[in-house]
Amino acid sequence: MRMVDIIIKKKEGLKLSKEEIEFFIKGITDGSIPDYQASSLLMAICLKGMDDEETLNLTLAMVASGESIDLSQIPKIKVDKHSTGGVGDKTTMILGPMVAALGVPVAKMSGRGLGHTGGTIDKLESIPGFNTELSQEEFIKIVQDIGLAVAGQTGNLVPADKKLYALRDVTGTVDSIPLISASIMSKKLAAGSDAIVLDVKVGSGAFMKTTEDARKLAKTMVKIGTGAKRKTVAVITDMDRPLGKAIGNALEVKEAIEVLSGHGPDDITEVCITLAAKMLELAGMGDFKKCTGLAERTIQDGSALKKFEQMIKAQNGNEKVVDNPDLLPSAKYTFEYKATSKGYITAIISDKLGVASMLLGAGRATKESTIDPGAGITLLKKPGDMVEKGEPVMILHANSQSLFEASVNELDKAVEISGEKPSETPLIIDIIQ
Amino acid sequence: MRMVDIIIKKKEGLKLSKEEIEFFIKGITDGSIPDYQASSLLMAICLKGMDDEETLNLTLAMVASGESIDLSQIPKIKVDKHSTGGVGDKTTMILGPMVAALGVPVAKMSGRGLGHTGGTIDKLESIPGFNTELSQEEFIKIVQDIGLAVAGQTGNLVPADKKLYALRDVTGTVDSIPLISASIMSKKLAAGSDAIVLDVKVGSGAFMKTTEDARKLAKTMVKIGTGAKRKTVAVITDMDRPLGKAIGNALEVKEAIEVLSGHGPDDITEVCITLAAKMLELAGMGDFKKCTGLAERTIQDGSALKKFEQMIKAQNGNEKVVDNPDLLPSAKYTFEYKATSKGYITAIISDKLGVASMLLGAGRATKESTIDPGAGITLLKKPGDMVEKGEPVMILHANSQSLFEASVNELDKAVEISGEKPSETPLIIDIIQ
Repeated sequence: MRMVDIIIKKKEGLKLSKEEIEFFIKGITDGSIPDYQASSLLMAICLKGMDDEETLNLTLAMVASGESIDLSQIPKIKVDKHSTGGVGDKTTMILGPMVAALGVPVAKMSGRGLGHTGGTIDKLESIPGFNTELSQEEFIKIVQDIGLAVAGQTGNLVPADKKLYALRDVTGTVDSIPLISASIMSKKLAAGSDAIVLDVKVGSGAFMKTTEDARKLAKTMVKIGTGAKRKTVAVITDMDRPLGKAIGNALEVKEAIEVLSGHGPDDITEVCITLAAKMLELAGMGDFKKCTGLAERTIQDGSALKKFEQMIKAQNGNEKVVDNPDLLPSAKYTFEYKATSKGYITAIISDKLGVASMLLGAGRATKESTIDPGAGITLLKKPGDMVEKGEPVMILHANSQSLFEASVNELDKAVEISGEKPSETPLIIDIIQ
Repeated sequence: MRMVDIIIKKKEGLKLSKEEIEFFIKGITDGSIPDYQASSLLMAICLKGMDDEETLNLTLAMVASGESIDLSQIPKIKVDKHSTGGVGDKTTMILGPMVAALGVPVAKMSGRGLGHTGGTIDKLESIPGFNTELSQEEFIKIVQDIGLAVAGQTGNLVPADKKLYALRDVTGTVDSIPLISASIMSKKLAAGSDAIVLDVKVGSGAFMKTTEDARKLAKTMVKIGTGAKRKTVAVITDMDRPLGKAIGNALEVKEAIEVLSGHGPDDITEVCITLAAKMLELAGMGDFKKCTGLAERTIQDGSALKKFEQMIKAQNGNEKVVDNPDLLPSAKYTFEYKATSKGYITAIISDKLGVASMLLGAGRATKESTIDPGAGITLLKKPGDMVEKGEPVMILHANSQSLFEASVNELDKAVEISGEKPSETPLIIDIIQ
């Protein structure tokens, strides 16, 4: 088999065989296929596509490129969740405790963030002492003990994805539904859970700009999951507005505690209940309606908050932050960002808000940057709210006053104010299963 | 400017600016753009195309990547000719003397061949003593003295093409009209002639499989030439049959001498007169009809053969080969390839014939292979001829009898015999100017 023939086949729009896809992924992983051939094939895939069978074969070949986590020591159906990115997305910290509080084990591996705010791992590490670098044994032991653990990736999972992702980033080949789907799903499959709930974001700041594309991505990923014999569901959610009011690592932990305590913002609470209910449904806890009720009750009866506290303790964090969020790191300086005119806020563009937050220290500009756990943004107003000129719209948090100016410049592009009240759009757009 | 943005722009089917194309070619030449980015863009160009302006800008940027030959010391209009490859294509050795015999200077730089038979340089080197490695000064001096020289490439012409061609070959991105056109035309422009006649082959063994594609390629190249202020004409010729009867280096020199002596095969003679007439027309020698007559006369009056003899002498070759072709190297063994059934020869597939010839030693399998100047094939029959079963169709020439078997296997796939006489197709399909 020659790589150049595989490239030409895809260039001509033909379907690649399982063997050809495996040859490509093996060669990328062991270095026998040079990057210049890989990138040429990636571009051909971007422009000519892959059908469901090719995409499944690609995903499975990527899983086979490395280790997979064996969660069989943990009884019951393990449910995983993945979100396709989002500014101020703290759902994992809320969902995990809700689902685990009902006895459904959640063994969640999560990543660090690049750009915007940190990833879930960065957010949890803002809790003093919290340890995310668990060995596979420690990780499984904690899930066995309390039903919930969130750790950084352990083991050599999907090395082909690491190589491909780095290459796609610099060769203009990120934007492809089969490639995005295979990248996400290979990691989910290797992570070993029995069922997967996908939170597919749609909007100006998301990977998928249109509902149509988000639906395509969701359907492709659900087919991969089903093809790999995992129960899989995708929830399409709106990312044209920030979720909740906090952006920044410790600020988001604080907001997660508020949601789990029953007094968090409505939007993030609603999304978390829906996602949790789908996870519970896949775990066999009943139909969606029943599971929605179960999920709501974990907030009302305090069991989800209790589970979060247990997890923090099990992972060596200071669990007192749950009762006393002031123990979380906070920034030295705050700054009120004010409305530049009177009217309705029609949009707060998520990715610009993310950049503004990164500029305050909450995210990484490059892989080498360090994160400031206390930095970030608190929204005082949300899209649809009326503001007077000069009225505070958000509070910026930073450890150096010099950081505010660049952030404000970015926010001036993020906040749109108009005389007309914007129409309300649903937060949960569709469920694909 | 970032390469990844240029890639994404082309991926989205947008037009690249002159500056973006120059950035790409500069980066490929100085190594600042890695191969994996270049190949990704090349695939995007293959699939999304380039318009005439982009293709001209690409060609000019490639010319600017290296040196150009200055032929201004040679008076009059210098005419160059390029053929897009072909099995048994010895036109340069015939055309050059015809045109030069009429006082139009021909300063032809030519290449070595890979696969099939050798290139023109390899063919000429089968003449004992013939030197193709001329310095630029020697090259120009010979053209000044006798009006004709054929040399291997001198100087660092179009280094960007060398890099791109090597990369395209292994990344499945050869097959693109803008890229093929820019590759050919950048070398023609850098070679310094004032006018260019292109011989675009069409057929199963050629780059361009259909007349439609050949016309597209011809039009694109003519537009580039015109855009770069060189008079340019393309002649589309049929390559579904071999040109002439000889395939192999010394065998083709011998056939060139036969054509120049006025008793060569009709097909190759017709193509050479047409191409020579177009070259003469571009050089201002009159209209096409008049130039056709002039070209024919150079054969009838022996002036073209005389010019070929002068060139051989000027380039240190043994010019006696013209009168005594037996001085050319010949193979030790011959073998008669016979018809496997009775009927009309409907096709002799050119590229398979080329492979059979290479297997006898006439071409290079890899860049490192050496060429056997005496090896090759002489056709006794051509498409349209009637044969009896067992009647000789060609004679194979090789210096080892062990080479015949593999060659015969290839020829069994090349020669098609049927009960029905094939319809005659024209040799000159179209002229684009």
